[in-house]
Amino acid sequence: SQNIEKVMTTPEEKHRTDSANLLLFIALLMLTIFTIWIFKHKRMRFIHETGLAIVYGLIIGVIIKYSTVSGNAPQMGNVTCKQNTSVVPSYVYVNYNNSNYLFTRQLSDLCLNPHDGHIALINSNNMTFDPELFFNILLPPIIFHAGYSLKKRHFFRNIGSILTFAFIGTVLSALVVGSIMFGFVSWMMVYNTDPTFTFGFVDCLLFGAIVSATDPVTVLAVFKELKVDVNLDALLFGESVLNDAVAIVLVSSIQKYQSARSSVFDSGAFFSALGSFIGVFLGSFAIGALAAVITACMFKFTKICHYPVLETSIFFLMSWSSFLLAEAVGFTGIVSVLFCGVLQAHYTYNNLSTESKARTKELFELLNFLAENFIFGYMGVAMFTFSHHHFNAIFIFGAFVAVLVSRACNIYPLSFLLNLGRKRKISRNIQHMMMFAGLRGAIAFTLAIRNTCTTGKQMMFSTTLLIVFFTVWVLGGGTTQMLTWLNIKVGVDEDDVAAVEALDLDHQNTETDSGPQPKYADSAWMFKNWYKFDKNYLKPILTHAGPPLSASLPSCCAPVANCLTSPRAY
Amino acid sequence: SQNIEKVMTTPEEKHRTDSANLLLFIALLMLTIFTIWIFKHKRMRFIHETGLAIVYGLIIGVIIKYSTVSGNAPQMGNVTCKQNTSVVPSYVYVNYNNSNYLFTRQLSDLCLNPHDGHIALINSNNMTFDPELFFNILLPPIIFHAGYSLKKRHFFRNIGSILTFAFIGTVLSALVVGSIMFGFVSWMMVYNTDPTFTFGFVDCLLFGAIVSATDPVTVLAVFKELKVDVNLDALLFGESVLNDAVAIVLVSSIQKYQSARSSVFDSGAFFSALGSFIGVFLGSFAIGALAAVITACMFKFTKICHYPVLETSIFFLMSWSSFLLAEAVGFTGIVSVLFCGVLQAHYTYNNLSTESKARTKELFELLNFLAENFIFGYMGVAMFTFSHHHFNAIFIFGAFVAVLVSRACNIYPLSFLLNLGRKRKISRNIQHMMMFAGLRGAIAFTLAIRNTCTTGKQMMFSTTLLIVFFTVWVLGGGTTQMLTWLNIKVGVDEDDVAAVEALDLDHQNTETDSGPQPKYADSAWMFKNWYKFDKNYLKPILTHAGPPLSASLPSCCAPVANCLTSPRAY
Repeated sequence: SQNIEKVMTTPEEKHRTDSANLLLFIALLMLTIFTIWIFKHKRMRFIHETGLAIVYGLIIGVIIKYSTVSGNAPQMGNVTCKQNTSVVPSYVYVNYNNSNYLFTRQLSDLCLNPHDGHIALINSNNMTFDPELFFNILLPPIIFHAGYSLKKRHFFRNIGSILTFAFIGTVLSALVVGSIMFGFVSWMMVYNTDPTFTFGFVDCLLFGAIVSATDPVTVLAVFKELKVDVNLDALLFGESVLNDAVAIVLVSSIQKYQSARSSVFDSGAFFSALGSFIGVFLGSFAIGALAAVITACMFKFTKICHYPVLETSIFFLMSWSSFLLAEAVGFTGIVSVLFCGVLQAHYTYNNLSTESKARTKELFELLNFLAENFIFGYMGVAMFTFSHHHFNAIFIFGAFVAVLVSRACNIYPLSFLLNLGRKRKISRNIQHMMMFAGLRGAIAFTLAIRNTCTTGKQMMFSTTLLIVFFTVWVLGGGTTQMLTWLNIKVGVDEDDVAAVEALDLDHQNTETDSGPQPKYADSAWMFKNWYKFDKNYLKPILTHAGPPLSASLPSCCAPVANCLTSPRAY
Repeated sequence: SQNIEKVMTTPEEKHRTDSANLLLFIALLMLTIFTIWIFKHKRMRFIHETGLAIVYGLIIGVIIKYSTVSGNAPQMGNVTCKQNTSVVPSYVYVNYNNSNYLFTRQLSDLCLNPHDGHIALINSNNMTFDPELFFNILLPPIIFHAGYSLKKRHFFRNIGSILTFAFIGTVLSALVVGSIMFGFVSWMMVYNTDPTFTFGFVDCLLFGAIVSATDPVTVLAVFKELKVDVNLDALLFGESVLNDAVAIVLVSSIQKYQSARSSVFDSGAFFSALGSFIGVFLGSFAIGALAAVITACMFKFTKICHYPVLETSIFFLMSWSSFLLAEAVGFTGIVSVLFCGVLQAHYTYNNLSTESKARTKELFELLNFLAENFIFGYMGVAMFTFSHHHFNAIFIFGAFVAVLVSRACNIYPLSFLLNLGRKRKISRNIQHMMMFAGLRGAIAFTLAIRNTCTTGKQMMFSTTLLIVFFTVWVLGGGTTQMLTWLNIKVGVDEDDVAAVEALDLDHQNTETDSGPQPKYADSAWMFKNWYKFDKNYLKPILTHAGPPLSASLPSCCAPVANCLTSPRAY
């Protein structure tokens, strides 16, 4: 009876507990930020800020775990009562020991853990954040910022290689991890005593998809400070941003396939998954592009730029809308918001007032920083407060081997193939660095935490946490050292490179028709044509930049051209 | 059975519905912002932006109400089963028509409407926002911004009058509204046919407290554009910001008293309420001040200002912490975050890097703008989607009369009393303008929506909505006109006034000891002493400003003084 009293709280108490919990996380964030500053100030680089956030998270997690009494594990009851209504009620009172207790109908399927009959909550101490929070609130600003601050020139120069690594590489990686894990799982099953535990090939593939997303956060923060070789930077950044999107679509395709309740993997299912994969990707891209184009036009054709607060608000809300719209229609918000970010930077940014240019950059920088550190801190906390960890030595060992081998299978063969077509080869050392920089981070965590219903899924979650910790601490911490060993050029001045290359490009562009060999042949055809189309049509339509459309469009379109061209373009 | 299927949703569907709902509100916000721009652009002033947000909200509300089938009102079921466990489970399966349905234990008391046996949800169509959202997420940035952008000089010059209007005025207003409403409620009860419906004097007082908070948003936005007389501005702004805090503490005191389950109002309860009122107010103030002082010291004694992102993050998180900490220990977060804002602006702001000064201002300006428009838009939506409105003609008529009379009882007598002591009198026309500018807004709405359990509370909520709409549209829309009629000076240049008065003040300050009559005698003693203390001790301790502490402190404290004084102060 005392137990019952303890569980029952008034709304006011609940509000106070919620505030205290949130406060704890904010204190964690502040502690992390302050230590980050000390590390930056003292120029300590043996551990990166995201690694620090995890360490603090672990400490807080330990404190929470051992400071609160965790005897209140959720209990399951079974009541079988015949009712005379045909409509199932939303609320019921159940009478226990002559007292009525209110129960509310669960409208969505809660996942029940078949292993112990409990509902698998993220933890038992009320320290719960809805996993959807990570997806809907924390990830969008991170991904948008990645798109918005993308170095477009180097990105598009290497677009062919990036797409290869991101698409083919990630799928390859998922398959390799899946296959290796299938072997280890079979070994693990020999020692398994629980008859309800199953872990099929599709589960292995799911795990492969979860851990195949490399993280743009940690390594690139180091790279940015060191001003590393721009091509390496573009390759790694492009790969890690795009393979997030690929992994997300891959995971949701596999889960859709899994929930169709067949446990063999046939070719029909494969092609249907491939079809939905392509459809989802293109649909999401379209939504992101649409949002960016609407924003660009809105700012081009109105004078809203006189009111920077309104302008920034619209910019922020439109970008978030692209995410929500994609999620609402069943596409992938992450892909959508990424491309929205890229296009907002490419077109809309030029239409913004000077003040809003600074404001939007600063706003997303701040949101990105806070969200990133929160996620990494939360990972540390989850290590101790998640109450259904399943650590299996064979599975963990297998996972580390699989992650290593799959990264090698991704980078070296694909680099070899790409080098056949590239003018500017991906050197051996750059390949080693890419191999080394395969960190896992926020996306892998978010994908793993989304579903922790079965013992198998919980095992994936626990193992993913370990992989993230290892890669962030060991690989992330060793980045500077590794760059030195591999003799990779640092201290490259971004602007100089960009200025020289912009000159080259304009030069090349004006001479293209008369036919001299362009200097950069990497994805040259695709890049060149896109550049021309963009410069002559898209930029004049969507921004104030010239040349006027009347010059590039045929004369029959003159009225339209005049109407769309900004007076500033002449 | 079809009905059952319809209610049951998968997590994925729920996620999509959530995204779509959020998208709808973001679309509403964007529409409002865009129209605000058109109104600003065309210089239309007959309706203010917050009024516009409400209009759009109403339209969206109508669309939601009539476009969705709302047949799924929550149903209540009663299950009486003896169980053999002593622990009440967290989850039960209840069997209806041979199918099991999962129900989760409600840990906090949901409020049940005794009138119709349903749980009073904000609406029936899933368009639910937790009322706590308004309190915890949307209000803090609005209030912090109010404190952060406060014009300190005029505020502190009028501090005596402001405190009188805010504290005595608001309590007076609540009492007057309560008494008048008690009369109208007695009249209303004559026609009442529902025996379960009760509405005592304490309920009337509660309603009085809810509608006594005037809103800083609407009128002051108009004032800012018109550059109205600085003293009127300071009085109205100060009053509306502080009386928010007073109203919140008042409401929670009354509710605490009410939940103690006595229905007569005796003097013992009154003094205990008064005591808790003062305690809560001082405690909240202390937390806000503490957060500001810690932030100021942190930025003064470290060189974190070299990293503006870290600096802005810490600033933002510390300010939010003051809110959360106050809520967690049972004080009032709004009061805490308000004073935190004032002190952050007064001390911490001076320690920030140039970049962070701009960043923090812009960030809170943006958050304030979005939160404000969201709340006003949501008010419009709630008008149609809230499914338990109770409109009673007598109650509504009484409320309008009460609000009018209470405002008059607040402004005219208190102005008369204050004018006895003020050198610079509050003129008749300023008094009329203050009477007219008693708009109700976000705080009244948030206080009313927090509890909509009983028919009486629902009646309060419905009536509060009407009062807000009326004051925002009619009074807010007529502000410009009213200023013209009352011959109140507009187009006052803030900086000129400030510069002239700063000179006066320094002059006065240096001559104070030799005794000439200070020019401004309004709250002069309090203001003057505070100013001296602040200038000689607090500012040198908390910021880089001079004079050095070694000059103002006695010589025995020299080591401490040297340690605390910034090198820049010498």
